[in-house]
Amino acid sequence: MSRRTITGFSNPTVKFLRSLRDKKHRRREQRFLAEGLRLLTDARECGRLPETLVMATGRESHPLLTALEADVVAAGGEIIEMDEDILAKVTGKENPQSVAGVFAEFDTDLASLDRSSAKIWLVAQSLRDPGNLGTMLRTGDAVGAGGLILIDDCADPFSVEAVRASMGAIFTQGVGQARWPEFIDWLRQGEGQLVAASLRNAQDYRHAPYAGPCFLLVGNESRGLPEDYEDACDLRVTIPMLGRADSLNAAVAGAVLAYEALAHIGA
Amino acid sequence: MSRRTITGFSNPTVKFLRSLRDKKHRRREQRFLAEGLRLLTDARECGRLPETLVMATGRESHPLLTALEADVVAAGGEIIEMDEDILAKVTGKENPQSVAGVFAEFDTDLASLDRSSAKIWLVAQSLRDPGNLGTMLRTGDAVGAGGLILIDDCADPFSVEAVRASMGAIFTQGVGQARWPEFIDWLRQGEGQLVAASLRNAQDYRHAPYAGPCFLLVGNESRGLPEDYEDACDLRVTIPMLGRADSLNAAVAGAVLAYEALAHIGA
Repeated sequence: MSRRTITGFSNPTVKFLRSLRDKKHRRREQRFLAEGLRLLTDARECGRLPETLVMATGRESHPLLTALEADVVAAGGEIIEMDEDILAKVTGKENPQSVAGVFAEFDTDLASLDRSSAKIWLVAQSLRDPGNLGTMLRTGDAVGAGGLILIDDCADPFSVEAVRASMGAIFTQGVGQARWPEFIDWLRQGEGQLVAASLRNAQDYRHAPYAGPCFLLVGNESRGLPEDYEDACDLRVTIPMLGRADSLNAAVAGAVLAYEALAHIGA
Repeated sequence: MSRRTITGFSNPTVKFLRSLRDKKHRRREQRFLAEGLRLLTDARECGRLPETLVMATGRESHPLLTALEADVVAAGGEIIEMDEDILAKVTGKENPQSVAGVFAEFDTDLASLDRSSAKIWLVAQSLRDPGNLGTMLRTGDAVGAGGLILIDDCADPFSVEAVRASMGAIFTQGVGQARWPEFIDWLRQGEGQLVAASLRNAQDYRHAPYAGPCFLLVGNESRGLPEDYEDACDLRVTIPMLGRADSLNAAVAGAVLAYEALAHIGA
């Protein structure tokens, strides 16, 4: 284990930490950042410790932070202290949290997901907004889902924004990433009902025959799902749209469906 | 009506438009910005025209834009053209929409809301995120709600982010703003069931006796509702939380409740 204090903005570790705000660098390093004591405590309670714990020198002491620090030390991790203004540069926020952690990214191959572990799974196609992505993870946690499967070109689940919006669910939910054909191949190798939120050939979402494991698919924020994706689904369900707009926010649509499915088939 | 072309960044009109990104200036001017042809067309179809229509000189022509322009001209509004890079400065985006409009803010006194016009109303307390606020407006439109009532210190419904996230619902939904005591006074002067999303003394949200006009109250993103606010409600309902987290995203909680109430009492 190592412990050190960084005093300069130009320190290579500061540059490394800062680079993790960028997807390209996260991919190369296979590492991501999570900020704030609450998020790091959630991670710890899920058995995930940061490889590196970064703390502001002027932080207030907190029993949860002390416990976290002790666990990171015991696991052989690195503790770095730096002035608040340097940490602000790392986290890119004016009022930064006084603590952040560097985590190893985890496996997002579909093969890493155990479909029998939950009755509900959320699936998003070309979801572009990291806030929506994190919110779907958070909703998945709440409904006892197994995880979130990201199809085609989605936002990065390990981005700071997605991790933050997940409110810790990034550490509890499984995450899969795949192109559509690969997902369909995987899905059809086992049990699983694929349900699309759709306006075409669809039935009322309140009275649909949901069956677990149930994979609830929502489409891109502005284009929705491609028709052939909808056609490949076992069930298409419609959420009423009584106003002028023809769609809900993607994370909202996912949540309304997830809670409906939960009421029908349980967790 | 007036029509002019602006060629300089330092033009006072550019400064005025840009100032509308700031809440203080919006309040003083009683004006707000909406960006993009889709949003402006939504507004037009709701009978709301911008006082000023701002267009990029190099824009592509579009029949909806031509129709909008004609309506603004007919209503005595102002048309301003400017280079794309100047418009980018106004909208603060690298890839700006090629059109934006300046609208008069509308009345958000509770007295402006007709509670008998809808069975569902959304109410948010100290909602801080403009994206969540806009998403709640969008959900309100979808469930046929009358509008969104903002209690205590919420994000500004006329901010560019809230207007954008509303996907046009800012033009279809009523908006009220009040402190809590004022809201309760207004509510109790007429019919209305106040329902809180709550974990205390609450019943299962799937089997609660919703009754219209039903006011669905969600609390602040991190603190939830104050206990005395919950106690003042006619009904407290709980959405199952099966995971580690003890709350949903505020806009998600509002949507899950709104769709449940819709299934019970209709729009």
